[in-house]
Amino acid sequence: MIEDKNPQRTSIAQLGEFGLIEHLTKNFDVTQESTLKSIGDDAAVLDFKDKKVVISTDLLIEGVHFDLAYMPLKHLGYKSVVVNISDICAMNARPTQITVSVAVSNRFPLEALEELFEGITHAAKEYKVDVIGGDTTSSQKGLIISITAIGEANEDEIVYRNGAQKTDLLVVTGDVGAAYMGLQVLEREKQVFQVNPNSQPDLDMYSYLIERQLKPEARKDVRTLLHALEIKPTSMIDISDGLSSEIIHLCKQSKVGCNLYEDKLPLDPQFISTCEEFNIDSTTVAINGGEDYELLFTIDINDFDKIKGNPNFSIIGHMADESEGINLVTRANTQIPLKARGWDALSE
Amino acid sequence: MIEDKNPQRTSIAQLGEFGLIEHLTKNFDVTQESTLKSIGDDAAVLDFKDKKVVISTDLLIEGVHFDLAYMPLKHLGYKSVVVNISDICAMNARPTQITVSVAVSNRFPLEALEELFEGITHAAKEYKVDVIGGDTTSSQKGLIISITAIGEANEDEIVYRNGAQKTDLLVVTGDVGAAYMGLQVLEREKQVFQVNPNSQPDLDMYSYLIERQLKPEARKDVRTLLHALEIKPTSMIDISDGLSSEIIHLCKQSKVGCNLYEDKLPLDPQFISTCEEFNIDSTTVAINGGEDYELLFTIDINDFDKIKGNPNFSIIGHMADESEGINLVTRANTQIPLKARGWDALSE
Repeated sequence: MIEDKNPQRTSIAQLGEFGLIEHLTKNFDVTQESTLKSIGDDAAVLDFKDKKVVISTDLLIEGVHFDLAYMPLKHLGYKSVVVNISDICAMNARPTQITVSVAVSNRFPLEALEELFEGITHAAKEYKVDVIGGDTTSSQKGLIISITAIGEANEDEIVYRNGAQKTDLLVVTGDVGAAYMGLQVLEREKQVFQVNPNSQPDLDMYSYLIERQLKPEARKDVRTLLHALEIKPTSMIDISDGLSSEIIHLCKQSKVGCNLYEDKLPLDPQFISTCEEFNIDSTTVAINGGEDYELLFTIDINDFDKIKGNPNFSIIGHMADESEGINLVTRANTQIPLKARGWDALSE
Repeated sequence: MIEDKNPQRTSIAQLGEFGLIEHLTKNFDVTQESTLKSIGDDAAVLDFKDKKVVISTDLLIEGVHFDLAYMPLKHLGYKSVVVNISDICAMNARPTQITVSVAVSNRFPLEALEELFEGITHAAKEYKVDVIGGDTTSSQKGLIISITAIGEANEDEIVYRNGAQKTDLLVVTGDVGAAYMGLQVLEREKQVFQVNPNSQPDLDMYSYLIERQLKPEARKDVRTLLHALEIKPTSMIDISDGLSSEIIHLCKQSKVGCNLYEDKLPLDPQFISTCEEFNIDSTTVAINGGEDYELLFTIDINDFDKIKGNPNFSIIGHMADESEGINLVTRANTQIPLKARGWDALSE
């Protein structure tokens, strides 16, 4: 227990999140016959005979992932479940159960925890998942939520990140960027409130953006929609860190390139007008803003006719040979390499 | 978002941990056909055809569950896995996978996280479980570890907390109390170190106790041992919160009473001598000290011959009619009602 106090110190920030995970997990071997897919996708897949089990887990920390100044606890509980279920949906699996662990400091009264669990219960009912376990404990500071989501699927239904082919189309559900702009609106209101606690904010014109931030939904319906269209995606991921970052994940794991078209990005009118008001470039937010919890996937080009014109889906680009790189094709028809900058890009 | 700032405030402490869990989870319904056992046991049981899946999750918080002043990170990583695997063993299931989520503040250099994951990897290898997923993120303060363990078993092998019969024998594996005394020794050394950082502690005489605290093992072997003896426990639980507290769990869920015999408690000689040195009553520690991660179970009285004299097991009491209550029978043959005081009892 007496240790060298001057070991080599490498900052975690230097590696970045993805580098860190890769670095720390490289020594884990898969030895169980029941482990079909280990670290490296939205969820792990276990083989327990007939149905495959998919499991995903997330840790949400106050001050890092949420700010209780504008995030009501009920919404936080709901969102915590949704973000995990979204990972199960991104495997094209059906969410079935969750476990919920919560740590809170003593400053939280029971009523606060009740509110949190009310949101969790509501989400569990909405998504028809059973809360099958968990842990509650005290924390030294703030609120910590850890959720593990479990789902099931037939083996042939499961979609990984690494199946995209270079001739595939790139498709996204819903619209992108709104959750990030919702956060901007809430941050601004928080500052206004700090200056003048009596101000009565009128947030009607931002209602969609705020809802996308405070009460996102997981696209549990997409599995059914695609099934009805007789489409099986070749690769899929959910958009939690930003479109750009997720496209790069798909490309790297599938060893393909990609062209994303700026003019094809699905943007909500409220999103566009708020970007103008905030004087932020809407494309930058649309490709780098996170927390949309939409699904991003690739399909065989022969499935084009099945999906074109469908209001649930937007074809936003196509995959390409790996040598072409991963690019944004602007409205001016210029190719710009996409970078996985995530949210950081927006605070530059 | 403008809320009544004076709602009714009930302190979490008033309810206590078990009351809190019960309070918060009472609205969760089980709707999945695959959910065989929801909240209320060491682990949840899911039915995915041939084999049943058992899942358990724990959250470990710095300053609450561990103190990095004397807990080396490698040991912490190892122990975090072990405490979760212990829950799977307590269902008489075979641990197969874990997910690991970690949040750290910026004060942790990469090397510290590597040490932590070295311990996790070591435990995963030792227990032959695959690390199949997780999450790493930053925290505002300290280190937070969340682990979900998954195991499998045939339906007829699974042992719940609620199957004890009033004529059953109460059995415990290994010995009890040592982990708590290990913590006392480490706390004392920490204080000595704070006064005199140059002191070189000689902890040889406490080696077993310290190992029990810093590097506990889950009783994965018990499943095999019992199988070989052709014994299936009627109820089972692992000792994380203290023998007394766990006995009460078994009794309440099985609706039976119990007599625990003071003179049957399995105590290590090092534990006894250290209790004397610290001037602490060894029985009090043995029944209230936690973190032993031994298994506590009940067996049919007809299985007595199969287990008697077996060095792996100690018969420490017998169940009784619910009306008899839950008692400690002292060496002086006095019956004292057992209380689930846990660790708190020891700091009184």
